Formats: sequence, C-alpha cells, structure tokens
Amino acid sequence: MAAIQVQVTRALSILVLGSLLYPVLAGGQQPQILNLMPLPSSVQAGTGALRIDSLFSVELTGYTEPRLDRAVERFRTQLSRETGISLSGKSSDRTKATLVIHTDHSSKPVQQLGEDESYELEVTNAGAKLTAPTPLGAMHGMQTLLQLVSISPDSFTIPAVSIKDNPRFIWRGLMIDASRHFIPIDVIKRNLDGMEVVKMNVFHWHLSENQGFRVESKKFPKLHEMGSDGLFYTQDEIRDVIAYARDRGIRVLPEFDLPGHSTAWFVGYPELASAPGPYEIERHWGVFDPAIDPTNENTYKFLDQFIGEMARLFPDQFFHVGGDEVNGKQWDANPKIQEFMHAHGIKDNKALQAYFNKRLQAIVSKHGKSMIGWDEVLDPSLPKDITIQSWRGAASLADAARQGYRGLLSNGWYLDLGWSAARHYAVDPMGESASTLSGEEKSRILGGEACMWTEYADAENIDSRIWPRNAAIAERLWSPQEVRDPVSMYWRLEVISERLDRLGLMHKAYYRQMLQRIAGPSTPEEFAALRTLGDVVEPVKDYKREETVTVEPTSATPLIRLVDAVALESDAGRNFGELTDKYIASGCHDAASEGELRARLTRWQGNDARFQPLVQKSFLAKEPAATSQDLSAIGTVGLATLAYLARGQHASADWKSEQMAIVQHAEAPKSQLLLIPAPSVAKLVEAAASENGCSPAK
Amino acid sequence: MAAIQVQVTRALSILVLGSLLYPVLAGGQQPQILNLMPLPSSVQAGTGALRIDSLFSVELTGYTEPRLDRAVERFRTQLSRETGISLSGKSSDRTKATLVIHTDHSSKPVQQLGEDESYELEVTNAGAKLTAPTPLGAMHGMQTLLQLVSISPDSFTIPAVSIKDNPRFIWRGLMIDASRHFIPIDVIKRNLDGMEVVKMNVFHWHLSENQGFRVESKKFPKLHEMGSDGLFYTQDEIRDVIAYARDRGIRVLPEFDLPGHSTAWFVGYPELASAPGPYEIERHWGVFDPAIDPTNENTYKFLDQFIGEMARLFPDQFFHVGGDEVNGKQWDANPKIQEFMHAHGIKDNKALQAYFNKRLQAIVSKHGKSMIGWDEVLDPSLPKDITIQSWRGAASLADAARQGYRGLLSNGWYLDLGWSAARHYAVDPMGESASTLSGEEKSRILGGEACMWTEYADAENIDSRIWPRNAAIAERLWSPQEVRDPVSMYWRLEVISERLDRLGLMHKAYYRQMLQRIAGPSTPEEFAALRTLGDVVEPVKDYKREETVTVEPTSATPLIRLVDAVALESDAGRNFGELTDKYIASGCHDAASEGELRARLTRWQGNDARFQPLVQKSFLAKEPAATSQDLSAIGTVGLATLAYLARGQHASADWKSEQMAIVQHAEAPKSQLLLIPAPSVAKLVEAAASENGCSPAK
Repeated sequence: MAAIQVQVTRALSILVLGSLLYPVLAGGQQPQILNLMPLPSSVQAGTGALRIDSLFSVELTGYTEPRLDRAVERFRTQLSRETGISLSGKSSDRTKATLVIHTDHSSKPVQQLGEDESYELEVTNAGAKLTAPTPLGAMHGMQTLLQLVSISPDSFTIPAVSIKDNPRFIWRGLMIDASRHFIPIDVIKRNLDGMEVVKMNVFHWHLSENQGFRVESKKFPKLHEMGSDGLFYTQDEIRDVIAYARDRGIRVLPEFDLPGHSTAWFVGYPELASAPGPYEIERHWGVFDPAIDPTNENTYKFLDQFIGEMARLFPDQFFHVGGDEVNGKQWDANPKIQEFMHAHGIKDNKALQAYFNKRLQAIVSKHGKSMIGWDEVLDPSLPKDITIQSWRGAASLADAARQGYRGLLSNGWYLDLGWSAARHYAVDPMGESASTLSGEEKSRILGGEACMWTEYADAENIDSRIWPRNAAIAERLWSPQEVRDPVSMYWRLEVISERLDRLGLMHKAYYRQMLQRIAGPSTPEEFAALRTLGDVVEPVKDYKREETVTVEPTSATPLIRLVDAVALESDAGRNFGELTDKYIASGCHDAASEGELRARLTRWQGNDARFQPLVQKSFLAKEPAATSQDLSAIGTVGLATLAYLARGQHASADWKSEQMAIVQHAEAPKSQLLLIPAPSVAKLVEAAASENGCSPAK
Repeated sequence: MAAIQVQVTRALSILVLGSLLYPVLAGGQQPQILNLMPLPSSVQAGTGALRIDSLFSVELTGYTEPRLDRAVERFRTQLSRETGISLSGKSSDRTKATLVIHTDHSSKPVQQLGEDESYELEVTNAGAKLTAPTPLGAMHGMQTLLQLVSISPDSFTIPAVSIKDNPRFIWRGLMIDASRHFIPIDVIKRNLDGMEVVKMNVFHWHLSENQGFRVESKKFPKLHEMGSDGLFYTQDEIRDVIAYARDRGIRVLPEFDLPGHSTAWFVGYPELASAPGPYEIERHWGVFDPAIDPTNENTYKFLDQFIGEMARLFPDQFFHVGGDEVNGKQWDANPKIQEFMHAHGIKDNKALQAYFNKRLQAIVSKHGKSMIGWDEVLDPSLPKDITIQSWRGAASLADAARQGYRGLLSNGWYLDLGWSAARHYAVDPMGESASTLSGEEKSRILGGEACMWTEYADAENIDSRIWPRNAAIAERLWSPQEVRDPVSMYWRLEVISERLDRLGLMHKAYYRQMLQRIAGPSTPEEFAALRTLGDVVEPVKDYKREETVTVEPTSATPLIRLVDAVALESDAGRNFGELTDKYIASGCHDAASEGELRARLTRWQGNDARFQPLVQKSFLAKEPAATSQDLSAIGTVGLATLAYLARGQHASADWKSEQMAIVQHAEAPKSQLLLIPAPSVAKLVEAAASENGCSPAK
C-alpha cells in the first residue's frame, strides 16, 4: 500500500505543479476535482459518480454503538445542509443502502493513543461502502465522504473513487488557551466540529494561567471562585465537552500549568506560592514571578488531591502539567527555598524544577496518568514515560527522542504568531533535526499540535486565528509526507474554509461584524473602503505586537481594533504578490496580469479619500489612518510604475529612489499593521528601474 | 406631547429631505446621527454624550422582577458585544449607576392587549435614566438605548437625548407560517430577538396547514404523529418559546386554521373531514378541497377537547382559528352536509362557514379566549368580540370596523410577496378606506401584522424573507403616522439590519452560504460573478412564482435555486435606479454619477464571461444562465447609451428601438428572476434618444 500512496500523491503533485489549480484524479474520463483536506494516503479514481437525491440512505452494519448512530445522524444533517436536499431514504435491506458503513469492532471506552483510525471507502455510481476496523475510522471516512460531495452539471454527486486512508501521525492536536481570555463552551464546541472535519484527534485544553483558573474544583473551590472572575467551566460542562469530543474521535487533554504561569492559583491559595501573598489575578501579559513552592510538602499534598480530582474528571490517559517559562525569581528570593536546595544538593533552579517534576510525575502516575509537559520538563532524571511537547524547536524535539522520550512538535505551529498557512505547512515533525534520527528514535515522535495562545484572541475573533490555517497543519499531521504542494494546499484550504463557515465556525463571519463596529453606521462606499484596507493588512508577526505597544494592554483591553479584526493571513495580499510575480516573470508582457494589477492599484490609490469620513467619525477607524494613506501611496507608486513597464521604458535611478522611499515608508508597521502588498510594489519598482528592462528583482 | 411629537418628527423629515442621508437632531452643537428604528414619538436632542467604558453600570429601582434582571443581563451582553468592552461596573449606590432603570409597577402575568408600553429616557453626559410604568416599557427603552450606542472620534457613546415614547398601535405582530415548511425552534427564537429590537409585541404562530400539523397534542396524538412527518414542536418547546417571548415583551398567538387548510388534521382523524379518507399530508401548494365537517356534532366534541388543551398550552387571551380560503367542494359533494344545510336553512357555503364559526366561537369563548380569524370569518351573525385579520384589503378592514368588529391589517404586509420595504412602509392601517372612519370605528383598528408564508421559505432563507423589511412595518406600527420618509427609512433600515446580523439573525449570512452551494468550489472571480448577478436580481413578485413554474414544486423540493438565495429586495438594484435618476435629473451632466454608472455597467458587461465556468460545472448556476447573459447585454446597452449622453449626442430612433428590444428582452423574467436594473437602463436609452437631449423619460 505504501507504493500506491507515493504513486498517487506524486501524481497529484505533478498535476498540481502543472497547469491546474486543483488536485485532479488521473483515472476518470475527465479530470475531477478532489477537494479533500487532509488528502488521503491512497486515492484511485473510478468512473462515473454517485448521484445524491432524497432517497440517499445510510445504514450501519457489523459493530455498532450509539456514537455511530449519532455520527450517521450528523452525516445526514450535513449532507442535507450541503445539498439542500431533505433525506427521506430508508433502505429496506440494510446492506443495500446507498451508503453502507461497516465497522469491525469497538474502539476503547476511553480513546487511546495509537488506536486504529484507518478506513477504506469505495464509491461507484451504484453506491458507497465505507469500511473501518473501529468507529474512529468510520467517523473519519464519513468526513471524507462529505468533502467529496460536489455539484455537477446535473445534480449533487460523489465521484467514483477508491480510498484507503490512515494517518501518518497518531497525535494530531489543537491546543486552545482558554485562560488568558476565557473561551466559552459554544466556541470550544464549534472548534471541535472543525477539528473533526480535518481529522484532528486531540483537543489540548490550556486551563490555568496567571490570568485565570478556568475549571471548577470541588476540592479546592477557591481556585475557580477567586481565580477566574467568574469565568470558568463547571465540571458538568467539562464532561459535556469530553463527550462531544469523543463523539468526534477527539481526545481531551487537560493542561494545568505548573510551577510557573500560576498566579491565578495563588489568589485563593497564597500558601502554595514561593513568596507571601496576597495575590491578585494577573491582568497583564508576559512571564511573571509567581511560582509554586516545590520545597513545601503541603504543595504535594495539595497537588495529590487536586490532580486526583482532575484525573477523575478528565478520562484521557495523558495529563499535561505545563512546566514552561519559570523565571525563578521567587525561588531565588526565598531563603527557605535556598536552604532546601542547599540541603538537598539541588544546584540551580533548573534542577529544582526537575525535582518538582519528579515529585509531580509520581503523583500524576499514582492517579493513573502519563505526564506530558513543555520542553522545560525534559531532564534525564525523569522517567522515560513522560512526553515532551516542544515549543522551543525541532532540535529540542529530536534531542528528547534521542534521550528516549516521546515527543510532540508545536514549534512552528503557534497559530497566534501570524504565520502564513504555507509556512506552517512546510513545518514537518520529521524535518530538520528529526530527519537524522534512527527509526526507533523517530517512532517516539508521536505527531504534534497547533497552539492557539490567547493574549490577542477572544471568543469573537479566535476562530479566525485558528481557521483555516489549522487545516494545513492538520494535513501535515495526517497526510503522507510527500503531500506538500502549497498551490494545491491553498486551493483546498479555501474550499475547506467555506465548508467550516457553513458548519458554523465564525472565522469568516466575524470579520464583517468587527469591521461594522469599527465603521459604525456608514455608507456602502465608506464601509467598502474600510474593507479594502482591512483586506490587505495583517497584524505584525511573531512577538512584534508586544514589542510595539504604545499603551500596555491588559486582559480587559477590548480586542476591537483593526489589528484584532483583520485575518492573520491576507488572501488579497497573497494574491497581489502572486500576480506581481507572474507579471514580472512574463517580462511584463502579460496583459491580463497587468490589467488586474492596475485595477487593484487604482482602487487602492483612491481608497484613502473614501476612508477619510470614517477617520473623522470613529476612533477605531482613526487609528489605522496612516496605513490607509500608505495604501493609497503605494497605489500611486504602483500605477506610475506600471506606466513605465507598459511603455517598456527604463526608469531612472532618481525616480527609483524616490518611489522606494515611499514604499519603504509604507512597509514600516503602523498601529501594529503590516501593509502586505508593499514589498510587491517594491518588486515592480525594481523591475521598472532594472538595467535590462523588466526583470525580477534580485 | 402630541405637539412635540409632530414637531420633532417633522424636523427629522425636513432635515432628511434636505441634503443629509440620515436623521439628525436639531439641538446639539453639531448634527448627531440618530439611528433609531422605530423612531420614537418624541425626541429632544441634548448637549454632549454619555461615554461608555468598562465601568458602565446598570441598576433597577422601583418595581423589579426576574424578567427585568434578565433583560438587564441581555442589555449588558449586547452592549458588550456592540462595543467589545467587558462591563465590570457595579455601582455601590443603586441610584448612582450609569444607567438607572426605574419601573413603577408590574405588568400583567399574561401580557394583555393594550398594556402600557411607554417609557421615557433621559441621557446626559453624566448618566442615563430610563423610566417606565411597566417592565414592557422598560424593555422597549433598553432597546432604544442599545440603538443609540454609537462610535465617536474618542470612544463609544450614547448621545445626550430626551425621549418620550409610546406605540401608535397596541398590536404589532409578525406571523410565521411554521406549517408549510417547518421552522425550527432556534429560528423562531432568533426572530423573536429581532422582533424585540423593533418593538413588535405579537408573534402569531401559524401552526397547522394542509402540509403539516406542528404541535404535539396529548389529547389527539395522531394530529402530530401522523400529520407532521415528525416535524412538530413538543409542548415543552412551545412553553419555552412562550417564556422566551414574554421575556421580550411579546405575546404568542397560536393559529389553528379551520375549516379549510386542514388536510394534515385528517391524516390521523379522517372522520373529521367532509369526505371519506384516507388522507395524506399534502405535498403541493395551493388551495385544496379538504375541509372539516361543520355538520357533524363529533367535530365540535373534538374541537372542544382540542381547543381546551391548546387554550391551556397558549396563555394568550386571543386564539386564532384561521378561516381563510375554503373552496367548499367537499361540502358541495357531501349529501349529508347538503341535507343539513337544507334542514337548517343554511343557504350557501359562506353561511355554513358562519354557522361553523359561531359554534367555534362558543368553544373558544368557553375556554376563556377571544377568537380571531381571517377576513372570511366576518359575518354579522357573529358576536362583536371576535377580531378580524385582514389579508384581503384595507376596505375589508374598514368594513369590519364599521360593523363593530376589531381588526388588524395584514394586507400589504405579506413579506413573502417580495415587495420593497418602501412599498410595505407606505401601507398604513389608517390609510385608504380607514381614513373615512369615525373616531370610535378607528379605535377598533388595533394595528397589524406582517405575514411570512413559507411556500418558498425554509429554515435556511426565512430570516432573509422577513428581515430587514419587517423593521419598516414595525416602524409603521410603532412610530407617529407622520414618520414616513423612505430615504430616512432606508438609511436606518440598513443600520438595524447590521445590528440584527450581529445579534445572530441569518438574513445576511445565509446569502454567501447559499451562493457557495450554487457555485461549488470556485475561483474568487467565478464566485464574484455569481454574486454580482445575484445582487441585481429579485424573485418575481406577488404570486408570479406559482404562475411560472415549469416543474410543479412540492414541499420536498429543495429551496436551493438562485431565486431562493437572492434577497427579495435588491439593494444594488435600488441603488442603480437612484443613480440613474440622479444622473438624468442633472441633465446628464453629473460626472460622479456617470462614473459610478459606467463602473457598474462595465462590471455587468463582462460578468457573463466570468460566470460561464460555473454554468459548465453546476446545475444550479446553469439555471440562471440566460439572466446572466441579459445582465451583460444591458451592460453593453448602458455603456453605449452613456457614450451618447456624455457626448451630448441625440440617438436615432432606429438605434433606440434596437437597444430597447434588448432591454425589453432582459426585462422579461427568466427562471423566476427579475433583472432589476433593466428598467433603469431603459430610462437611459429614452434619455439618449429624447428630442430635447438628456431629459427624464415620460
């Protein structure tokens, strides 16, 4: 089967890298679009298609359970929604339904790491058969089927196809930080819906932070009562989410971050900290001093009871203890801790944290769980059954694997840093340092997790920070390593993104609503001007937002600015870059590209004038006023440049430096926004001033 | 106060009819936007504005009840959502909160017709005070306050203002037909949210039809079990909706339509019909023969028990019995019924229905309710406490009032017929025939109801069929009669429409999702072409859709065509018409209008070429292919015409007739779609061919 995998995916890649925008099956009479994400490990095209009408029926054979019935009901609902067709079909003979789903046997009562998630799918013009060893594979197969539904010149159909599919990695996760900003249950659930679509199987729930403790504890109620501003999940809500996730083949991994990132614990229980209280919930962002006291035996008594309670609440076999970013200041300043370290030969804070982690690991293990932590928990003194989640880098992950620890990659997959989907997509758990590992060492790399930290995301915009880019990471974790063409990825990403929108994710719909707030009541022209601006800017990347604050934000600062509203990856900006490259690559002869560039530049040139009324009316529109001027300025530069290029004239060095000064001014971030098309306009200026006439910039 | 009312609203109208696009308060230092809908009966502008920050606090004084607490909680949530600001404010002194809401006394346990709904609102830069006799007024006032929130150059604010407000009519309703297409609870609830925003106070729930019986009956379970395809509301769900409505100051009026429109009743209880069964749920649209047997005593025994059960379930004082469109065929064909009529001196079917209604009225009255029915129930033999809902016309309503019956207007407010908001807005319960009534007769006209029949609406598109146009009807029913400027109305309608979108109504969001289904996976250009087409077409009006079917639709026919997806009123179409009129009125000298017309016409001219790939791929895009060609054709005509007009040339009669032939072809509906800009293009052609140069067409 491996041979088929590579063959098919190479065929896909070759076709994609050819003239077509979307992946195509080689088998049928005519090319068929396969808008699947993640792409399956093996695909063979058939002939014809299965027509969908109201008689479409679904039956389960073999092993069944209520979860499968519910999955079929969801499948039917979504098929109805996609097609608008009410499904009334019931087959008299279960094995003759339009879609027969055969499951061999049950999966584990609590979903385990490494359970069989494979499935096979046969679609012909007469019907569809989905076969899977366990309900997990059956559910994945239903998602694939839904993605295969397409409109044709006659009807809605599913193309004839033969698919064998199983994941490349057994751990495919999304972490959501529900602590810095509280993320309500309905938002969590719709993100679980999204994870199901892209076959992710671990929801990692970051539940405690300096800024908030988000779980009801019956043993230690002051944790949520005093540490959450009333924004916490009840245990019933958590059980509900876990059941919801299980219904979608998703494990729920809780994280309680210790010994640092723990201020919110100490509001109710200051005696746990390494410095005297009282403590208040932290309102700022950053790394803070408070840390649990690892030298106090009461700490371990507390944790034993607390972890016991949480271990019963969260059934997953893994338990995440955080462990990142302890600055050690409270430890340094506490004489009793220093004394303890001296007495026990603990030479530094790193060793002290390792001591804490060993004690913690014993407690976690006692309660039947396997411990997982961020890079910092890695210490040779810890037993090999802990798992390392690498946020620091691929080298750190490879190092852990070499030392015998299992690991997960998250470095390169921090969704909040604003990287492009293509950049996330290029990251591979087996890339870089990991590529030199032995087979056994490689087997310790279980997969990875996308991470959504929420300093600058809340219930309103978080979906847009996760989706659609998370689907590219999901594909990296599921599909064969050879699947990596970004052109195909971006085409399919947009298709999936639309599907997620129809499913209720808010990553598209939030945008107009946030722009409406910024604009206030406005004319269509004013609103269009705001949208034109918003469409071509992105927030500054990585940790630049922290580095460029004028007024330090707090957790109460409303996330209502343009930087909070715009997408982290500008489709319009990427599209302008592609057009520019295509135009220059044509020697500036491609009239169609030139026309499209001119249309966009013309719109931008006039945009600031249309935007001005909003600047007068709204403080939120006033903030990006300089960026709006920059956009019009690069519009003017771009149009002047196109005029040179279209006439085949060579622009002078003086002209070039004048234009480049304008463009460079526009490239400098303002109000934490990047003007994405500016570098492309610079390329055009370079081309116009090139000695050889139009030619790509170096 | 009446003097102030008229004065202020006239001032608004005058300002609106002047140069400004939006209603303006005359008092402040500079004009302030008052985006209220419905407009209050009296408004006085103050100076300054109340700033909204996280310390904004709300307190209740005077009479309070849990419903008011919930209303305040909703107010806080919505204020937070509008501004993005988390409200942490709690006032130590209840009377010093930012917003103090004082309620004098309770309203009735079951909301009654004519309860006091008035309120007064004083906003200064120091705070806001809302005073109301009852919770109903307090809740209306909170909605007004939310609509006053606006963005300023510094912050979010509420302008200083003094408002005294009460409704013109005491019955302001929206009817939803949940029977022809079943409308799920969540859709009902979000429409109640919308009604609250525009201060409507009656939700009329059309619960039985030939196509479905939608309420669980414990007495007669075969009604919902056999008459609903499983699509019905449980009694718990109904109680939940009633409580939800009460929380929003809305009465819930149930309608069980008899003696016609009743096929679904007879599936389970064929013995009630006037012809032998068996019966099946009706799948087609129209007026059908089945009618209850009014001559059978068992009919009344059944109805006594059934209405008893429903009278307990629905607490409202009114009970709607339908009564419309009985074709009488089953009565004519039944010898026993004919015999009964003869024996009792009942001369025709109208008299037979009056006999039935008298019996029915006695039962309704016995169960403590006041009967209401459509025009057809009007008969002098019925007691004067019945109420007539007029779907047939204003004359019918005036006639009822003259005869001593109370009445409601619905004629002119059928939302499903596709009229413009302006046309609905111009309808007035006191207009036409009613204007000649005496004062006492006029007092019998309680108000009216917008009606949403659902032959061509389902859960997916119904919000778009109701909103935003329903807000214009709501304003007609609430605001002073003098408030009737359509320019002001359209401006405020769009502001309210955006607010409803943010509140979760789907009338905007559904559109892109339905277009996505039609397009399937597509390039941005293809999708934009579909959207450009969809933006300028409307479904054929009134009952033309029924009259132009090619394949007769059934209740199972998916509502997924372009005609189902597009808005019933095209903003882009109206806008093009306004631009055209403005351009011609300028003697074709206004360069800005000309430029905008040219831009639109250019886009349309090229649109069909961009649309073609979808026609090849999707059966749903193929259907409107001819309309797409028409759009490009009128684009070409329009551009050629502009060229004449811009040169000041006089076009020849031959040229004119050639162009008009093209436009007239485009004006003819195809696939049940009207191409809205076509008549405006015809106006341009007329102007270009006018003897006197550019001048308005006759």
